Amino acid sequence: MEQIRALFARRGREMPERNVVQAMFPRGSRVIANPNGTAPGFFYAQGKKILAALPGPPRELLPMLEKQLGPRLCAQRAGNTARRIRRVYRVCGVGESELQAWLGPLSQNAAWPELGFLLDEPGEILVILTARDAEAQLAHARLKIALQEIKKMLGPSFIGEVRETLPGAVGKGLHQRHETLATAESCTGGLVSRRITGVPGASDYFLEGVIAYGNAAKIKRLQVPPALLARYGAVSEPVALAMAQGVRRTAGAAWGLATTGIAGPGGGSRAKPVGTVCLALVGPGKKTWVQTQRFLGERELVQRRAATAVLDALRRRLIET
Amino acid sequence: MEQIRALFARRGREMPERNVVQAMFPRGSRVIANPNGTAPGFFYAQGKKILAALPGPPRELLPMLEKQLGPRLCAQRAGNTARRIRRVYRVCGVGESELQAWLGPLSQNAAWPELGFLLDEPGEILVILTARDAEAQLAHARLKIALQEIKKMLGPSFIGEVRETLPGAVGKGLHQRHETLATAESCTGGLVSRRITGVPGASDYFLEGVIAYGNAAKIKRLQVPPALLARYGAVSEPVALAMAQGVRRTAGAAWGLATTGIAGPGGGSRAKPVGTVCLALVGPGKKTWVQTQRFLGERELVQRRAATAVLDALRRRLIET
Repeated sequence: MEQIRALFARRGREMPERNVVQAMFPRGSRVIANPNGTAPGFFYAQGKKILAALPGPPRELLPMLEKQLGPRLCAQRAGNTARRIRRVYRVCGVGESELQAWLGPLSQNAAWPELGFLLDEPGEILVILTARDAEAQLAHARLKIALQEIKKMLGPSFIGEVRETLPGAVGKGLHQRHETLATAESCTGGLVSRRITGVPGASDYFLEGVIAYGNAAKIKRLQVPPALLARYGAVSEPVALAMAQGVRRTAGAAWGLATTGIAGPGGGSRAKPVGTVCLALVGPGKKTWVQTQRFLGERELVQRRAATAVLDALRRRLIET
Repeated sequence: MEQIRALFARRGREMPERNVVQAMFPRGSRVIANPNGTAPGFFYAQGKKILAALPGPPRELLPMLEKQLGPRLCAQRAGNTARRIRRVYRVCGVGESELQAWLGPLSQNAAWPELGFLLDEPGEILVILTARDAEAQLAHARLKIALQEIKKMLGPSFIGEVRETLPGAVGKGLHQRHETLATAESCTGGLVSRRITGVPGASDYFLEGVIAYGNAAKIKRLQVPPALLARYGAVSEPVALAMAQGVRRTAGAAWGLATTGIAGPGGGSRAKPVGTVCLALVGPGKKTWVQTQRFLGERELVQRRAATAVLDALRRRLIET
């Protein structure tokens, strides 16, 4: 109960009376501390069986499982010498079925680890390698060989371990090159900036962002020439480029990034159907890149795919030598 | 196979040879069309048992389950006259344990529906009511009575059905009042704008957003007086208010919204620890609101809680008469 009381005290509050029950546990059970919430868990062991109760929110559950209950379960299985080792890697810019077609034949080899795929953020795929061997060292060696082949095969589409996120890789690239970034978003509505600023330390390289939803904001905040908007429309490659150039110049950043498109459900036309998005980058030495893509799916998915596509385009340019 | 081919054609691509296997199904099974992907599902019925195979991504799985397989399963259970009806509502601005303390005693009444809680976005809670009765009509009546009591008890903290999101409720309020919004975000890095622009039709009321990460952007884009930054620091109520006023004025919007804080992990101090966030709103008739809050948790969670708090503050002001 003292721990619960202390947690409330850290939030500057008194512990309410109703939280007292959170400090009550079955006789003979052992408490599992909850670093991220007031409700602790507990487990009760009898012979080889363990009964555990943990809170539901993943943020509370996961550290309790991974750092406290998990190691205990593993220790209990220590008599078992067969080892199963799992690694998860992140891949961006290839589809799941392409990935399957590329990596599938490799995994036919019996010495290869088991291969699995998981869709993460739309446009990003997690590749799961599971190696089993009597010796942990041998399982590790198999994983290492498989990883080298995967890296060679996927080239720049391979991002790294699962913890290395796409915006994290962009941040790493900018940080290493001592370059800064500013964003100009229309259809992604802040999602690109939100993903970039989700990375700790983003303030080192992210200067500012403009969400220029209407034409007025594009003209005033980003200095997009009105004639360009009138001639090509807001969703066009010339406007995307002008937005990227405008935010780069007005923010004084090394890189300018822009998105403009039709996220839907309304606003589509025959020439520019819902899902049409123009993406642009302007970098050091006036290096430019612009592309029109058509993303399928509902509004949320179009926005997420567009954000991933432009972040991935930037990541690829940052790892070029 | 024609459906798969057509899907590729709509994306302007040829169907690769490897997708042919997606059109193969066990003899005697029935195909479940996949509106959002190339891999269809199937089911096989024998007596009262159904074996179904569906693709994993939720965007593909859910419509297949809800619109095709689900109704079939329900029809099969139609002989069973006991009815279970479930409704889910969204609540914002009260903690889970407070909610439990308020609603728990009500649900002691045997006529009340079963009560459950689910944390959604941090700061938002879903209240799940499940009523069982021999007659569907009676179950509905119980739900209705419970809902009235919940609404009365929670007042403005009650948002609506689960589909009514917090940014959706903000959008509805702005739309009904014919008012517009502009945002100035520092520590939330685009998340507030991203949530607002996730709502279809947001362009009707959302004019523009500025992600002013550094002081330079706060001065240049939002006209925050440098003296204010020097005197109070970027994370302060006067600066939050100046940011909201600045974006409101420069965008010509009815409402200006601002966030500035320390999302962490770095940047905290004794006086302003990690998690300190100043939130501000400036509305029609120069109505202002500013508040400093301290959010617990890691960077991501501080950002999400701060975004929810400022959106909820705006929502409450929009429903005031």
